[in-house]
Amino acid sequence: MVNKVNKDTTLCISLAARPSNHGVRFHNWLFAELDLNYLYKAVAPVNITQAIAGIRGLGIRGAAVSMPYKQEVIELIDGLDPSAERIHSVNTIVNEDGVLTGYNTDYSAVKSLLASHEIDPGLKAAVKGSGGMANAVVAALADHGISGTIVARNAETGTALAERYGWEYAADVPADAELLVNVTPLGMFGSDADAMAFTHQEIENASVIFDVVANPVDTPLIKAARTATKATIDGGEVVALQAAEQFTLYTGVVPTDEQVQAAEDFSQLG
Amino acid sequence: MVNKVNKDTTLCISLAARPSNHGVRFHNWLFAELDLNYLYKAVAPVNITQAIAGIRGLGIRGAAVSMPYKQEVIELIDGLDPSAERIHSVNTIVNEDGVLTGYNTDYSAVKSLLASHEIDPGLKAAVKGSGGMANAVVAALADHGISGTIVARNAETGTALAERYGWEYAADVPADAELLVNVTPLGMFGSDADAMAFTHQEIENASVIFDVVANPVDTPLIKAARTATKATIDGGEVVALQAAEQFTLYTGVVPTDEQVQAAEDFSQLG
Repeated sequence: MVNKVNKDTTLCISLAARPSNHGVRFHNWLFAELDLNYLYKAVAPVNITQAIAGIRGLGIRGAAVSMPYKQEVIELIDGLDPSAERIHSVNTIVNEDGVLTGYNTDYSAVKSLLASHEIDPGLKAAVKGSGGMANAVVAALADHGISGTIVARNAETGTALAERYGWEYAADVPADAELLVNVTPLGMFGSDADAMAFTHQEIENASVIFDVVANPVDTPLIKAARTATKATIDGGEVVALQAAEQFTLYTGVVPTDEQVQAAEDFSQLG
Repeated sequence: MVNKVNKDTTLCISLAARPSNHGVRFHNWLFAELDLNYLYKAVAPVNITQAIAGIRGLGIRGAAVSMPYKQEVIELIDGLDPSAERIHSVNTIVNEDGVLTGYNTDYSAVKSLLASHEIDPGLKAAVKGSGGMANAVVAALADHGISGTIVARNAETGTALAERYGWEYAADVPADAELLVNVTPLGMFGSDADAMAFTHQEIENASVIFDVVANPVDTPLIKAARTATKATIDGGEVVALQAAEQFTLYTGVVPTDEQVQAAEDFSQLG
């Protein structure tokens, strides 16, 4: 550290009420690997308006934006990339000579993954969850041509999310759902670690299982889907790709798939 | 670097129109040596008002302040320590739970050095220079009980500085000057590297030579003073002590003299 940081080092940060080490480890690993004079620091902002002023005043190159600031920052910056405009949510700010533009790499990463996994736009989807990440995922699914059903315990947010993209809302997973998507914390480390968002029967009836949970990557849902020999997209792919897209926005450099995977593997250790 | 910076790392910065690597190297070396989870980053602020907002909004622990912001920041922060109040100049900001206080460790370091070198308050001083650092040095000399003469090419700023502390102003060095102080760039790396602020005769007539130039520490003036077996205070001592005082303000930790010297030696390499 002592030998790397100097007066010319470009600073990137994250803004989150509860910062994690993922971005710090992912980006700093790639900065070192690619010999870029950048430094990434996670910040829990005291005041989001002053934090954005600080990005301008201190010439900070970029910022990841997490809960609960993804909507709040919109009026504090200068413009939105279509990815953030589409879902009215910013997870990345890029400072280009004082002009701050908001992006959403969760949305763009999910969209890219649906294309690279060659997901059939004709599949009927069932999405569990109705929060901010569900909004990004459903928008990407809809823009991939997919329609389906939001299945959420919260009928109000579930119905609103469904209506936004011309989908249905239901309390239960439709029997004919072919693409199952989990955007709830079920399966995440903690009290819900053993839980699955979908039943074994629902998995059996489907052809593709997509779990956004990345911590761990091998959730009970993903494991069950593999056992049932279904196609899968896991949360590790989403996290790595959205972070790689942020990295490119900050640095202009496109890391190789191997570098992204190595950075992601390193991040999982932290 | 990759392994050290994490979400809990405390950030300190410097604010200077032309950042140097000194603070970056000094503080990061000591943070590593003392195993403190801190990181220091030099910043050339785009806008000082927004930069100070950023210190608040991003929860930055402390900031060194250099030209041209030392007066400008006063109205942007919440209060002044007596060291900054005394000379109406801030070179250090400490953020204590959102309350920003300005200090001046140039002033306090010079005052400490006059005491530790046991400089006789009865000496008649001649100070060359009338800029911001000269203001800090003359205030410290005056508060040590010393009076004397400001010798500056700029009669306007020289007279103003002299009047502020009840000193004299003169175009030439008085023949009876006993403590010679250089606060000009004469002797600094660059086009003035071979220049001396005082003549060999003036050095011969004096008993103590104090050169604020730290780059290099062994200026022609300091070398000539040593050859003439005069007592000296050099710019390296000022820089190291003021940085050590900043370090303690940021971390609450008092480094040993050996640690400060090692950090300073490391900084000189950068």
